[in-house]
Amino acid sequence: MANLWPRQDAGSRRENSINVPSYISGYIDGEGCFTVSIAPRRTLVVGWEVRPSVSVSQNADRSQVLLEIQRYFDCGTLRPDRSDQTLKWEVRSLPLLLARVIPHFLRFPLLSAKQRDFELFNEVCQRMAQGQHLTLVGLSEVVRLAGAMNPSGKRGYSPALILESLVEMKA
Amino acid sequence: MANLWPRQDAGSRRENSINVPSYISGYIDGEGCFTVSIAPRRTLVVGWEVRPSVSVSQNADRSQVLLEIQRYFDCGTLRPDRSDQTLKWEVRSLPLLLARVIPHFLRFPLLSAKQRDFELFNEVCQRMAQGQHLTLVGLSEVVRLAGAMNPSGKRGYSPALILESLVEMKA
Repeated sequence: MANLWPRQDAGSRRENSINVPSYISGYIDGEGCFTVSIAPRRTLVVGWEVRPSVSVSQNADRSQVLLEIQRYFDCGTLRPDRSDQTLKWEVRSLPLLLARVIPHFLRFPLLSAKQRDFELFNEVCQRMAQGQHLTLVGLSEVVRLAGAMNPSGKRGYSPALILESLVEMKA
Repeated sequence: MANLWPRQDAGSRRENSINVPSYISGYIDGEGCFTVSIAPRRTLVVGWEVRPSVSVSQNADRSQVLLEIQRYFDCGTLRPDRSDQTLKWEVRSLPLLLARVIPHFLRFPLLSAKQRDFELFNEVCQRMAQGQHLTLVGLSEVVRLAGAMNPSGKRGYSPALILESLVEMKA
């Protein structure tokens, strides 16, 4: 990723004001989270629902950046997280993720290892746009992609458990 | 601060790559901390030493951004924080804070309420550059400025305790 840092340093005099898209990528690199949760849903043929979302949490007394992020992406909800006194901006709509959130991170990529989470997240969303998550084979691939994300985060249903249930459905 | 966001949104096509200074301000807005600690020091006439620092902590497995921040500012140490398995980038040198860190945030300001912490931090550093912290009156002002920073953070010595000791020295 070295070419993302073209001769810019603290002594550079080329810029003199904030570039908002870059600022938002930096902020979300630190505070944001790309998530793909997979939960049981009996009304779906495959038995599991795939729910991608992007979110940023922040202490409620520093909500200004979240409001600016919501304005910048022109989507997403802001709501209090009762568990820890924070405020959370979140986008769960697949069409909005595809139209407004993902294009931003393709143009202004994260500079940390969190970029890999984004790339997996993007892959899941693109497959969902093609309906692949509604077939057993396609869903198995989505489960594997989601299982490679956020290795340090907490999980609901383990990829192994979900894949096992899919194998049973095939049999 | 509305004028910092001049007609830039997720649909804008003006930019197509990361602006590093803005990215770093965004990252530090989320993850960084401006601190002024004040600790007893018998060898100083006023009895207290003022120690300003800027730091960013990050899980050690995501150290890449810290390395880039160190490279961008061309100063600061990177060391493990034994207490919580994180890696911390930190600048404690007043001359380096004045020459390399503060000018960055004057040109690429934070967009959250943390900007106020930076402004107080800058005021403390500018006063230290003039030696004001080495006099009882000047130190009292520095203690008040530092006491207004990071209201939710933990403190060592309370501003009230330090000011009380300064009043006793004057008497």
